[in-house]
Amino acid sequence: MKSAQTLIEEGISALQHRNYYTAFPESPRAYGEGGTEKAQDDFARLLNQDFQELKSEGASAWVGSEVSPYLMTGLGIRYPQFDNEQLIQRATAAQRTWAKTTPMQRVEVLTQCLYRIQERFFDLAVSTMHTTGQGYMMAFQASGPHANDRAMEAMVMGYQELTRYAESVDFVKPMGKFDLTLKKTYKPIPRGLGLVIGCSTFPTWNTVPGLFANLVCGNASIVKPHPKSILPIAQVVGEMQKVFEAAGLDPYTVQLAVDTPEAPVTKGLAEHAAVQLIDYTGSSHFGEYIESLPGKTVFTEKAGVNGIVLESVQNPAAVFGNIAFAASLYSGQMCTAPQNIFVPAQGIATAEGHLNFDEVAQGIAEAVKGLAENPKMGPFTLGAIQNEATAARVQALNEQAGVQCPSEVVSNPEFSDARTLSPAVVVVEAAETARWKQECFGPALFVIRCSDREEALSLAAESARELGAITSQCYTTDSSFAQQVEETMNAAFTPVSFNFTGAAFVNQHAAFSDFHVTGGNPSGNATFADANYVNRRFVWVGNRYA
Amino acid sequence: MKSAQTLIEEGISALQHRNYYTAFPESPRAYGEGGTEKAQDDFARLLNQDFQELKSEGASAWVGSEVSPYLMTGLGIRYPQFDNEQLIQRATAAQRTWAKTTPMQRVEVLTQCLYRIQERFFDLAVSTMHTTGQGYMMAFQASGPHANDRAMEAMVMGYQELTRYAESVDFVKPMGKFDLTLKKTYKPIPRGLGLVIGCSTFPTWNTVPGLFANLVCGNASIVKPHPKSILPIAQVVGEMQKVFEAAGLDPYTVQLAVDTPEAPVTKGLAEHAAVQLIDYTGSSHFGEYIESLPGKTVFTEKAGVNGIVLESVQNPAAVFGNIAFAASLYSGQMCTAPQNIFVPAQGIATAEGHLNFDEVAQGIAEAVKGLAENPKMGPFTLGAIQNEATAARVQALNEQAGVQCPSEVVSNPEFSDARTLSPAVVVVEAAETARWKQECFGPALFVIRCSDREEALSLAAESARELGAITSQCYTTDSSFAQQVEETMNAAFTPVSFNFTGAAFVNQHAAFSDFHVTGGNPSGNATFADANYVNRRFVWVGNRYA
Repeated sequence: MKSAQTLIEEGISALQHRNYYTAFPESPRAYGEGGTEKAQDDFARLLNQDFQELKSEGASAWVGSEVSPYLMTGLGIRYPQFDNEQLIQRATAAQRTWAKTTPMQRVEVLTQCLYRIQERFFDLAVSTMHTTGQGYMMAFQASGPHANDRAMEAMVMGYQELTRYAESVDFVKPMGKFDLTLKKTYKPIPRGLGLVIGCSTFPTWNTVPGLFANLVCGNASIVKPHPKSILPIAQVVGEMQKVFEAAGLDPYTVQLAVDTPEAPVTKGLAEHAAVQLIDYTGSSHFGEYIESLPGKTVFTEKAGVNGIVLESVQNPAAVFGNIAFAASLYSGQMCTAPQNIFVPAQGIATAEGHLNFDEVAQGIAEAVKGLAENPKMGPFTLGAIQNEATAARVQALNEQAGVQCPSEVVSNPEFSDARTLSPAVVVVEAAETARWKQECFGPALFVIRCSDREEALSLAAESARELGAITSQCYTTDSSFAQQVEETMNAAFTPVSFNFTGAAFVNQHAAFSDFHVTGGNPSGNATFADANYVNRRFVWVGNRYA
Repeated sequence: MKSAQTLIEEGISALQHRNYYTAFPESPRAYGEGGTEKAQDDFARLLNQDFQELKSEGASAWVGSEVSPYLMTGLGIRYPQFDNEQLIQRATAAQRTWAKTTPMQRVEVLTQCLYRIQERFFDLAVSTMHTTGQGYMMAFQASGPHANDRAMEAMVMGYQELTRYAESVDFVKPMGKFDLTLKKTYKPIPRGLGLVIGCSTFPTWNTVPGLFANLVCGNASIVKPHPKSILPIAQVVGEMQKVFEAAGLDPYTVQLAVDTPEAPVTKGLAEHAAVQLIDYTGSSHFGEYIESLPGKTVFTEKAGVNGIVLESVQNPAAVFGNIAFAASLYSGQMCTAPQNIFVPAQGIATAEGHLNFDEVAQGIAEAVKGLAENPKMGPFTLGAIQNEATAARVQALNEQAGVQCPSEVVSNPEFSDARTLSPAVVVVEAAETARWKQECFGPALFVIRCSDREEALSLAAESARELGAITSQCYTTDSSFAQQVEETMNAAFTPVSFNFTGAAFVNQHAAFSDFHVTGGNPSGNATFADANYVNRRFVWVGNRYA
């Protein structure tokens, strides 16, 4: 366990240099033997009970409506619910103390939180599986070490910005015959209460960056999870409340606001006058509502439709395999998963000779099918479908024209009822924009026949500008075309990953190295984690004393 | 003349340490003899002519409607006007080149601009006098060295943020049996075209920070001056166009968009799809419209109503004199000028004994009157009233109840027709909010009778929260009350200057030391110059290469 000071020093260096860095190793093996089994047992004991890890005094109800996409049964876990006004009052009271702590005091408390959360990585893996449908390994990594790294990244960026100016200065201005002298101080004043709205698929990874950014900047926060993905973040918030309480701080500095799909509370909290900061991950429709709220400082990650420009390759099998894996990982339910593959109608050059368009589409389809049907890989890579609507949407593609491989049920040897589907691969024409130029969330790939590579690029860029894109890919062996792709996609504020094969997947955004979401296109207005991500959470105020 | 590299190094250090720093000395004496006289002659030759310093090819008209508040005659200077679409097309074309320059290339060009502008400081002083009504010394300092310092501050902050990450990294992630290696690059992509909307009172000081921030971040910009204050910024833009042209860059990287009060063009530019960034200084009403525009990144400075909490003092004459000067400087037409003085009904303690409320009000009124009637000080401190509506508003106060000293015409020995008025000082009751709880722009002070010091503070903070405040003051000898004032005003995101007497005036915000506007209350959403001021003008995009 490293000290807060060490994490800050390592983190500041890592932020600048952007090489691989983690404070929380991503392999479960780093955390000892038997963790998974114990976590599975503990999870079983949570089912159909009232969740006891959160502060619950004054709860107005106990609610919960989570369903495991692996078990296809309700978890039956009930969480303490509080009236919005009570949440706000408690947060406001906690804010008075928290806002007065120094940046280093906050970092010390938040570092303890990170290490307390680390002790729960196995629990988070199991709870994330059974709320989101992620495979075990992804659930462990995404909700455990990767989420903690992103939280730490936000904390470090916050600390760096909060301490970038002298705290005070003895100002001396020569005035000719005399000096004007003043004492000046500079204070980063916290903006106010934060609301962090989580999504159903990455309940901790997408939530803790905003939460830790708020907290390091001195803002008490209310976490509002998706009603179908509460347990992982409830475990995180429970640990944090214990750390705050043990440190003699108000445990209500971090609160959980749960609700049900039938009686949502999010708008009431978001519109509350006391809430100044809103972090949001989820659908574009609700995200646009959040962005439209007057007088709020808002950080959003909405839907992105990620494209691949496929122009020429060295090794087609390696490329098709890479695309298949990127699209299959967690059944395409990652915000970074590819959806649209733009391919010239004349096909592509490869080191093994020319492949025509149909051969490309077929190669991708076979790679997708091969992965899904591999019993040692398929079900664990695909995980399960979080939401019934996603399954229905993808299965409907099977009825469309141009299906290269249909979405099929994949059986999971550990969970016989798991809602698992292989990706559909569908060939469409560039002009059929109604079919591909929208988000089709879930396991689906569209192979889009473009007149040439210029059209492939221009459609990819247009889609990024209009629909948003969190990332994009390009396969080309032509360096001048690569440069053109980079400039064109970057001008749409979309990053490009070039020629990924092997263990490099477009889906993966590493803390301290990859900016996640650029904030420049409709997929979101914020980035994990640039300076804006923290600086907009506080206000510099300078006082002067004669 | 310092090199771009030196300015960056000095500027980065100054930004952090926040002591007094300038690259452009504020005394006219530093710029040689005879400058004023030459500038006056040159100004006389500009009158009733077409202004020749700007690129004018393709102008659709020549317009101008400026009136000198000293001469009370129209200047008759006509500037080239262009159709909005032509301005946008030229800016878009220029942007393509400018966006590809490196941060250091931009700094080198902008440094040349600063030094070219420096050669025009005397001209800017005269042109600022005769558009804004500022006194000569203020006009010299505000439009010359102080504006250049603020422009440099924005440039330095931009350079620092644009270069804060490694440009590229050879990313190596240990994967157990092998390493995953990727090359990654990080690019700050300019947001897009900028529109910088100026105000009538500080046509360069309030404009160049946003302009230089846009440019250093790679965004071509259109400057839209107030139709009554064009000449100073036309001179600045003219110099910049010459620097760009001489550097082999597109001179239309910076353009001036002039209009007349009868046919305004601002909304057409602000709402244009190509305009991504808007900087605005001016009325709250139009500022709220600018802030409401969807999809724009907006930086505003709107009206602030600045308060003084007057609780106890050492030397009442020094305090009354300081307040009188702060309210008289440029006739209260500074955004940092005080308007409302909150005084306990029981009066204030002083080192010379207790003063009752009436004695306080009378003391302030006498100091104001004494300054205005001092022929060596009054007219030069007051300058002239920029706008007839301001004069009418202040003169109307003379008819109100509670007038301690009426606003009176002050004669200027150099300009017999100058529109110069002394400040009105009016006593009002705290409950008479309709009289004081609004902006009364111009030379006016309200002395507000509060039940006690707690009410004085609470009204000052409430006013800052509701109306906005760019700054505030407090006079108190009680350190615990001072702390209470600081916390309460800072919580309203308003800075406090304590116990200013002598040469320290609340009006003055020094580049590199004082944040100007906090961005946290309704007086504006941005700050000269914190990191947000530049980071929101570009987007980080990271590309990855296998």
